[in-house]
Amino acid sequence: MLRGRPASPLVSRSMDAAAFRAQFPVLERRAYLNAGTDGPIPRAAARAAADALAAQVEDGRQLDHFGARRELAGDLRAGYAALLGCELGDLALTTSTSEGMAAVLNGLELGPDDEIVTSDGEHPGLIGPLIAARSRGARVRVVPLADVADAVGPATTLVAVSHVSWITGELAPAALAELDVPVLLDGAQGAGAVAIDVTALGCAAYAAAGQKWLCGADGTGMLYLEPSFAERVRDTRPGYMAFAEDSPHDMGGRFRAEAARLDALAQPREGLALSLASLELLTAAGWDAVVERATQLAEQLAQRLAAAGRTVAPRSRTTLVSWEDADPEAARERLAAAGVVVRDLPGTPYLRASVGAWNDESDLDRLLAAL
Amino acid sequence: MLRGRPASPLVSRSMDAAAFRAQFPVLERRAYLNAGTDGPIPRAAARAAADALAAQVEDGRQLDHFGARRELAGDLRAGYAALLGCELGDLALTTSTSEGMAAVLNGLELGPDDEIVTSDGEHPGLIGPLIAARSRGARVRVVPLADVADAVGPATTLVAVSHVSWITGELAPAALAELDVPVLLDGAQGAGAVAIDVTALGCAAYAAAGQKWLCGADGTGMLYLEPSFAERVRDTRPGYMAFAEDSPHDMGGRFRAEAARLDALAQPREGLALSLASLELLTAAGWDAVVERATQLAEQLAQRLAAAGRTVAPRSRTTLVSWEDADPEAARERLAAAGVVVRDLPGTPYLRASVGAWNDESDLDRLLAAL
Repeated sequence: MLRGRPASPLVSRSMDAAAFRAQFPVLERRAYLNAGTDGPIPRAAARAAADALAAQVEDGRQLDHFGARRELAGDLRAGYAALLGCELGDLALTTSTSEGMAAVLNGLELGPDDEIVTSDGEHPGLIGPLIAARSRGARVRVVPLADVADAVGPATTLVAVSHVSWITGELAPAALAELDVPVLLDGAQGAGAVAIDVTALGCAAYAAAGQKWLCGADGTGMLYLEPSFAERVRDTRPGYMAFAEDSPHDMGGRFRAEAARLDALAQPREGLALSLASLELLTAAGWDAVVERATQLAEQLAQRLAAAGRTVAPRSRTTLVSWEDADPEAARERLAAAGVVVRDLPGTPYLRASVGAWNDESDLDRLLAAL
Repeated sequence: MLRGRPASPLVSRSMDAAAFRAQFPVLERRAYLNAGTDGPIPRAAARAAADALAAQVEDGRQLDHFGARRELAGDLRAGYAALLGCELGDLALTTSTSEGMAAVLNGLELGPDDEIVTSDGEHPGLIGPLIAARSRGARVRVVPLADVADAVGPATTLVAVSHVSWITGELAPAALAELDVPVLLDGAQGAGAVAIDVTALGCAAYAAAGQKWLCGADGTGMLYLEPSFAERVRDTRPGYMAFAEDSPHDMGGRFRAEAARLDALAQPREGLALSLASLELLTAAGWDAVVERATQLAEQLAQRLAAAGRTVAPRSRTTLVSWEDADPEAARERLAAAGVVVRDLPGTPYLRASVGAWNDESDLDRLLAAL
């Protein structure tokens, strides 16, 4: 990581791995190694979502319903903020990592005076807004992930790059924390997977997902904005919640100042309930333990793949393991048929396994046997 | 309506109103008159959402899951497009009416050369983006809803206004269909409540909600863009789905041309399944019948309120009925305690009842008795 809390090898031993794993029904049937796309959903989260749905069906959706949504959103914001090590007011609830990144890049109104440094291995969720910025005149410099800090020059106004590469599992260079230009980190493979402290990371913005390593609902996510940077990010889609509380909802209205004004416009109660219940389960297990166990298992997988003669992509101490295959798509299908869920990465030679604290050696055994 | 399909008084008689009503569990307990906020959820939709959740929990979220989401989204788009009378490619799936309006106003990159005409009774979901446009130099003219067509002058570049007023239930003036300037309609109280044909309405854009009169999930909605107008609306938050299918997902990528490129970035399967099942139920009942029955019941309520000495807000043939109360908030609470769900509209003297085809005379009786 760029800087962060020291990982404690002791904590993972204090976790009851079998009891934790038993919370995730999909693991009874599959070697599910796909949290980098969407995490496994724990039983308690499914129940929370079902309860939230039933309440809407039976009671209707009136003031109480909006109150319940607000409360869930508040608790989820608090949980995400604790995870990232930031203040509540500096965190917006988004529908995805992509939405957060687009909100930043669009809200900065980048133009001909801007030079953005990015890497050559970014996700379309970042590339899309970068193309949009370029079409408004901004210059975009594309270099390998390891070189992004060195590529920053006097004309650079923003660095926008993965915290953890979605392709290889490499971490962004630690030197990013020392830069004077604002850094937007794509934390889709970071939040819940590696230890994060946005202050130590020194980033201006950190966008992440609720549905991946946090095992939440599709359509949940988070965006941290450092307060002075937040002032520069215009809210380009201000809705009901963007208005300051003491402000009229008419053309005389004023918008809130804090990052929470960028909250997604309409988040469903069942999704908030699901994501919150998952977050509570993971938090109760202990983030240090969760991260350490996943990291150790991933490292074990990388070693076993290499020992089996596979070429593993260059990676860091993260939870993603990618390796080369002559036909990744066919291999993915063959593995799926054997109950092993990984993904291929179109346009690359890789298959990618996402290893979580919910996995165990038996999942790795199944993967290696099916290969 | 601005222009639209003729309402057929015959069709409503062909609808089995009691069987239709029996699909909505909340009506067994409450006189639920709040679809202008969020509609009642039918049993089949709750089941579809529960099944979609269970599949994710049991099977995990992998390629099949994304395939299921894509299929649901395709079916939902088709249903919405049929409702609005537009082509599939001209309709984006959004998370809310507000998101659609903001995407248009933000995507037009309005500035000092723009004059926008709007009404003095708009929803914060439209006012927010109008304030944002004004802060970029656009002028905003605010007039009563009935006067918006007349207020359009040679400098006007956009009209942005309610199709149906969320405060009173008034329709936008029919003369809007004859204007040469593009018209963005806020259809939050239109879609599913009044007959709509976007061609007859002559609008450049129509933004609407999935969770209100269409009884779908929170976080679903639609945005129609007339094709030549769509070309002017920049996608300010382009994500994975914005890329043309034959285009690389890197800085050489191109975006799709059609409105669907503005699809929300991450819509949850359970929400799509819920909204689709509700839409199918309503479609099967027949839109003409659904709209006509709701309109007739609303008219009946307006007449009964007036007969009871209440001052009903000026309204059109729509599904909203607002009336004055000395203390709307206290009255809303009193009604809620009696099992009657309506809403007050802060900043106005009104209570508002939303009348749907799922309601019947007994709901109106309960409302009048509780008043």
